[in-house]
Amino acid sequence: MIETKKLNKLTPRSIDQAKWYQELVQKAELADYSPVSGCIVFRPYGYRVWELIQQQMDKLIKEAGVENAYFPLLIPYSFLEKEASHVEGFAPEVAIVTHAGGKKLEQKLVIRPTSETIVYSMFAKWIHSYRDLPLRLNQWANIVRWEKRTIPFLRTTEFLWQEGHTIHATKADAEKEVYRALEMYKSFMNKILNLYVITGRKTEAEKFAGAEYTTTLEALMKDGKALQCGTSHLLSQSFARSFGISFVDENNVEQLPWMTSWGSSTRMIGAIILAHGDDKGLVLPPQVAPYQAVIVPIFKTEDAKNSIKAYIEKTEKQLSDFRLIVDWTDNSPGWKFSQWEMKGVPIRIEIGENEVKDNLVTLVYRVDGTKKKVKLSELTLEFKKALSEIETIIFNSHKDFTINNTFEVNNFDEFKSKLENHKGFIKTYFSGEIDSEQKIKAITKATTRCRPFDEKDLGKCFYNGEENSEVTIFARSY
Amino acid sequence: MIETKKLNKLTPRSIDQAKWYQELVQKAELADYSPVSGCIVFRPYGYRVWELIQQQMDKLIKEAGVENAYFPLLIPYSFLEKEASHVEGFAPEVAIVTHAGGKKLEQKLVIRPTSETIVYSMFAKWIHSYRDLPLRLNQWANIVRWEKRTIPFLRTTEFLWQEGHTIHATKADAEKEVYRALEMYKSFMNKILNLYVITGRKTEAEKFAGAEYTTTLEALMKDGKALQCGTSHLLSQSFARSFGISFVDENNVEQLPWMTSWGSSTRMIGAIILAHGDDKGLVLPPQVAPYQAVIVPIFKTEDAKNSIKAYIEKTEKQLSDFRLIVDWTDNSPGWKFSQWEMKGVPIRIEIGENEVKDNLVTLVYRVDGTKKKVKLSELTLEFKKALSEIETIIFNSHKDFTINNTFEVNNFDEFKSKLENHKGFIKTYFSGEIDSEQKIKAITKATTRCRPFDEKDLGKCFYNGEENSEVTIFARSY
Repeated sequence: MIETKKLNKLTPRSIDQAKWYQELVQKAELADYSPVSGCIVFRPYGYRVWELIQQQMDKLIKEAGVENAYFPLLIPYSFLEKEASHVEGFAPEVAIVTHAGGKKLEQKLVIRPTSETIVYSMFAKWIHSYRDLPLRLNQWANIVRWEKRTIPFLRTTEFLWQEGHTIHATKADAEKEVYRALEMYKSFMNKILNLYVITGRKTEAEKFAGAEYTTTLEALMKDGKALQCGTSHLLSQSFARSFGISFVDENNVEQLPWMTSWGSSTRMIGAIILAHGDDKGLVLPPQVAPYQAVIVPIFKTEDAKNSIKAYIEKTEKQLSDFRLIVDWTDNSPGWKFSQWEMKGVPIRIEIGENEVKDNLVTLVYRVDGTKKKVKLSELTLEFKKALSEIETIIFNSHKDFTINNTFEVNNFDEFKSKLENHKGFIKTYFSGEIDSEQKIKAITKATTRCRPFDEKDLGKCFYNGEENSEVTIFARSY
Repeated sequence: MIETKKLNKLTPRSIDQAKWYQELVQKAELADYSPVSGCIVFRPYGYRVWELIQQQMDKLIKEAGVENAYFPLLIPYSFLEKEASHVEGFAPEVAIVTHAGGKKLEQKLVIRPTSETIVYSMFAKWIHSYRDLPLRLNQWANIVRWEKRTIPFLRTTEFLWQEGHTIHATKADAEKEVYRALEMYKSFMNKILNLYVITGRKTEAEKFAGAEYTTTLEALMKDGKALQCGTSHLLSQSFARSFGISFVDENNVEQLPWMTSWGSSTRMIGAIILAHGDDKGLVLPPQVAPYQAVIVPIFKTEDAKNSIKAYIEKTEKQLSDFRLIVDWTDNSPGWKFSQWEMKGVPIRIEIGENEVKDNLVTLVYRVDGTKKKVKLSELTLEFKKALSEIETIIFNSHKDFTINNTFEVNNFDEFKSKLENHKGFIKTYFSGEIDSEQKIKAITKATTRCRPFDEKDLGKCFYNGEENSEVTIFARSY
């Protein structure tokens, strides 16, 4: 109740996007700032969203035949150093344990910034023959990366994620896995998070530290910045060499295996906020909403309250397969509407004297205010249809937004102008040359997001004029 | 297949219990040793047992109205120091992060050895009025405690657990929560893990660092050592004082709240191994078994194989509600029997030509070798009954073992003799005086496990003769 009384409107996105985001995270009770710099506390409502994401992602991972395992949090620093570009990428952001059990440690340990190295030290122990391959594991874990600037969910010192680690006999098998994971993520983003994403390959400058190549899912947020929603990598074979992983093939010849890794994290909660949220607060995709509907009783007299109470019980019975909450607090209906809009509950069910009299309920969609009167006897089916309709509305709205804010440019002046005046994805031919990319970033703060898989044609680089350059998407990003 | 060929018998428990345990953990593929001292890798089979434990415990926690949240892994060292006995208890075993992001940190951070302090720093922010109480949270997390001697699952540097943290307006409410959690654990140990446990209160010497008192669940392992399976604490109010947590009550008077915490961990997997396992390997309680049954086809000719294959498909359909695996590897039935016995699968289903001919299947119980012929048409129901019967057999066997190995003694000579010659729980009247307890421990390596709740009578202390001493259970422990 106290919470509700304090409920204020959010600073509009159009006025101050950063403030809007921070206020939303706290007022929707998703998370709170902790006393440890850069780390957040996941409050129950925010953690429940993560649990629902986790459950559904875990199901897809298991259906693909990948098994869960758990590797140590602490990794010898020397393991990072075994692969040159891996240590170069991660060393600047690791947290280091130097003392434990009252003593200085003989070897420094890092808190995992990702687990390739510790997983590969075990692969070396487990993999001997082609019969041991493939081995496909996943782990749900916490990760620590010391970030300079942090934003709840989007970039925090500690975050939660899943990381898949697989090992295969041939490059072809490994590549199949890389794309399988990417397609799994794409389907998850589309169907479960109702996010429209572009899939493609990262440039050399943006790939994972130690990967042969990185594939990615990029989504456009409503402020025109890109958010990377997940990645799937083919690892460089130098990992196999430096960790001493090899296997004997069917002809008794020793071979180097191929590894993949793929991950998605609590960042997805940030994507939901930034892609779907509005000035009233959060808009949750129905499949990850802690409550899919809130029932708000509307009455003036004690008599009315009693008949409404009985009617609500009937309504709950019809909806027993869904996640529901009934708001019986003493707050006014108006307050309740605002509170549950802030929390992004997909459907509000209004039940007042008229509904009881007419034997129906009123459904109101969070995403666009659609209002529907539904007969109580048809509620189970109609509610299911409503959730599915809402998923389509949220997804299409995000897809339209992305398409409408993707701009094609032919030269650097157009590039800078579009970036400043329109924001969004900038689509152009780009050589991929590392030096050019660094200069563009220094001048515009925009980076390459990916070379989309569904764009096959080649052209002249917008920046250095190189022919046969691939289509590339640039954006400022989180 | 490779794995199976290497399958050896275990060193018998009676010859070398420690060796038996280590071999079982590895041969059942529960876990492996990692390159980080004291940390294990949970292999898929072991992690699946943990997932099943977690799912069912999480359900009980949610049913009790406790919500999941997530607090940071890293805690300022200064937080530990705020409560004198807490820091005294945990300082010697914490891992300390001194450097991160390429710099020396201004304040040392510890990796959480438990989360009371970081949770309480947030309670101070969230709790203001009696209307904010109670607040009841739980977190699933990894924990690091630098242990000198480690054993997989039982005592590892990093382990996984759940920790409940609740805050209440009155001591009575907090105590209700302490006992609710304890009863929840007891029911879980009995019904899900089929473990017989003694519940009671810890002595002053053995209570949690910072608790007013600690309640515990103690189980007797087959080697006569005790294993603490979970604890539930009423915290000292000095925590509320040092973290500045207070609330205004209904009369507008400022009050100190009461906190509880309660936890259970991956140690429970160790309890399953040590309480139920035998010389053939693991014996898994059906509700946490990754596979509740393994179907082993037995045939000599290709023709027989085909008819058996079709019959197995029918069998699987009957058992679609259960977790099953069919072993179609090229190994002999004998090898398969041993392998799945090692892995503790509760029921083996043998299907050969006779079974097909007679339209039945043969069930064999892992725990005691019971063999049953069951008609295929009655399999769904009979299988369910078999699992429930197995749960009873495992639980009763552990209960009988515990009762038969609990010895009453009246003086220190008897105490020492029973401990040496019989092992098990030693039950006696004990004053609880800290100095006596330390001396007993120094001489015998036995510690107090608990003062059982169901033993109300008082008597003369077996050690120092003090009258009105409570019944206390001693044992050597893990």
